[in-house]
Amino acid sequence: MIKMELPDKIPFDTSLPVVTDLINRSLLQSEKTIANMMRHLSASKGKQYRAQLLLAAAADGDGFVSKDALTTAAAIEILHLATLVHDDVIDNSSTRRGRQSVQSRFGKKPAVICGDYLFCKCFLMMADISKRYQDRFLDVAQGMAKICMGELRQYEHNRDTSLSVMEYLRIISGKTAALFSLSLYAGGVLGGSEEKDIRLLTWLGFYIGMIFQLEDDCMDYRSDLATAGKNVQKDITEGVVTLPLIFAIAKKPQIRSQLQNFSLSPEDYQAIISEVCSLGGVDMTLDMADRYYGKAVKVLDRLSDNKKRTLLRPILEKVKLRNY
Amino acid sequence: MIKMELPDKIPFDTSLPVVTDLINRSLLQSEKTIANMMRHLSASKGKQYRAQLLLAAAADGDGFVSKDALTTAAAIEILHLATLVHDDVIDNSSTRRGRQSVQSRFGKKPAVICGDYLFCKCFLMMADISKRYQDRFLDVAQGMAKICMGELRQYEHNRDTSLSVMEYLRIISGKTAALFSLSLYAGGVLGGSEEKDIRLLTWLGFYIGMIFQLEDDCMDYRSDLATAGKNVQKDITEGVVTLPLIFAIAKKPQIRSQLQNFSLSPEDYQAIISEVCSLGGVDMTLDMADRYYGKAVKVLDRLSDNKKRTLLRPILEKVKLRNY
Repeated sequence: MIKMELPDKIPFDTSLPVVTDLINRSLLQSEKTIANMMRHLSASKGKQYRAQLLLAAAADGDGFVSKDALTTAAAIEILHLATLVHDDVIDNSSTRRGRQSVQSRFGKKPAVICGDYLFCKCFLMMADISKRYQDRFLDVAQGMAKICMGELRQYEHNRDTSLSVMEYLRIISGKTAALFSLSLYAGGVLGGSEEKDIRLLTWLGFYIGMIFQLEDDCMDYRSDLATAGKNVQKDITEGVVTLPLIFAIAKKPQIRSQLQNFSLSPEDYQAIISEVCSLGGVDMTLDMADRYYGKAVKVLDRLSDNKKRTLLRPILEKVKLRNY
Repeated sequence: MIKMELPDKIPFDTSLPVVTDLINRSLLQSEKTIANMMRHLSASKGKQYRAQLLLAAAADGDGFVSKDALTTAAAIEILHLATLVHDDVIDNSSTRRGRQSVQSRFGKKPAVICGDYLFCKCFLMMADISKRYQDRFLDVAQGMAKICMGELRQYEHNRDTSLSVMEYLRIISGKTAALFSLSLYAGGVLGGSEEKDIRLLTWLGFYIGMIFQLEDDCMDYRSDLATAGKNVQKDITEGVVTLPLIFAIAKKPQIRSQLQNFSLSPEDYQAIISEVCSLGGVDMTLDMADRYYGKAVKVLDRLSDNKKRTLLRPILEKVKLRNY
């Protein structure tokens, strides 16, 4: 593996493209066998919120981030990529980030291996860093186990229209919030925060992750958002039960039997989606996201580090408002 | 996670059941969602050669192994289990260790998550230990990446009857030998071996892994071995091209076109298997295994540690002769 020469530290403002570059180099330096899948993956990138958050939390008083923070941000995004690749196998999704998913383009079996390989890549990147933060590695491993369990729970509840709000929040706290939480935790550790701030950052990550997922759930029910990269109607057609639907079913249980009909047309789905909206499913979910936003702001304000607060705030706002 | 109280060290001779117990506890302490799959997995255990080798290499002069060695041996077996669960998804295998495979019993999607979960379990177990052996973690991560690449290469060459002997050896060196190598490497490190011995152990693991895989390949072609747990004809019917077949095709290229017929009956496969045997495919593969055995013995004899030599030798012999 050719090592990329990184400066010891760089300004936060210029750090995200460096992380993107690190990710791409890491993917494209892969062995020939896996190169096609890696090229496919590197051609589309998400918003990299997890990396952004990690970097902001890792910034020092002058707004600089260390080499270790850059590498860890790249590793976290690669870990995220690994879970997406396996998710698409599990949900049988054909698209991802506006492009064909790995499983649809290359097949399910190569996608399983591709995900495993990305997990390994992530560990390779972290291995070197973990030397300097030995006591923290267990937390990272535990965070990953949580993410995995969240996935499993979601799968188990596929098409489960009797899912409760609490159960649903538990699923997404593992599936999504755990990785956001891990990102900010790692940022805090790498940025040399004191224990109290690290704990606050970990909670902040959790809340941001919850907001992110709830906003994401709503996007699926907003046909006006059928824009680049976003696959509207995806959840409902794949049997993924999310909060807008749960709220709507609570108000009108008949929706449940409508969904049990397995030969629904896109128009039928559209009708259900419209009904979920008119029953307030989306609004109630956005209210829930607002409550997490309130908690996030409170935790953020308690951070003792002024610089980190200043850098994290706009990212929180972006996550909250990303679709509007 | 309830921690199992382990003594600081125990005699090598009594260590394997302790590792089995550790594995089972780790699997059965899983969350409810995954408990059924874990119970299924814990009910059938393999011969645990990787754990045996690790423990033997980790033994001190009095033949005692440390707590860390016991935990790492369990972690390595869980890692192995993770790869088996994903392998069965990739190869679409219905049986494993004489029982239904996870993918066949619970479905492909839960099996993907199950494997991911086992990877996480393995990391959780290693995380605590890695603190004390920080410089070594990178090697472990690299070993895992190798295993992953081996899997991918094997998949890419599925039904590739033009695979060369060299290419095949390269595949299995990743797919199988890398984990054996990693086990003995870890054993050496945990047992406090000097660098020279750690290098020798790493090579020894590689050779033993090659022997293991080549013997395994031969079993598939020996119908007299259709005994408990062994799925004779499995490789060839799943399109997995192994060394006996490669050697046979080199002697009689017509076999290639026979295999291209996709509607082969079990009798057709049996006829091809008999032909592979009569062309000497199995014997030549066993000769190749013998060559690795010769190398393994040489490396073993060069180990400066007498106790480890004494403990490792019988395991090498068992791997070599396990089927006869």
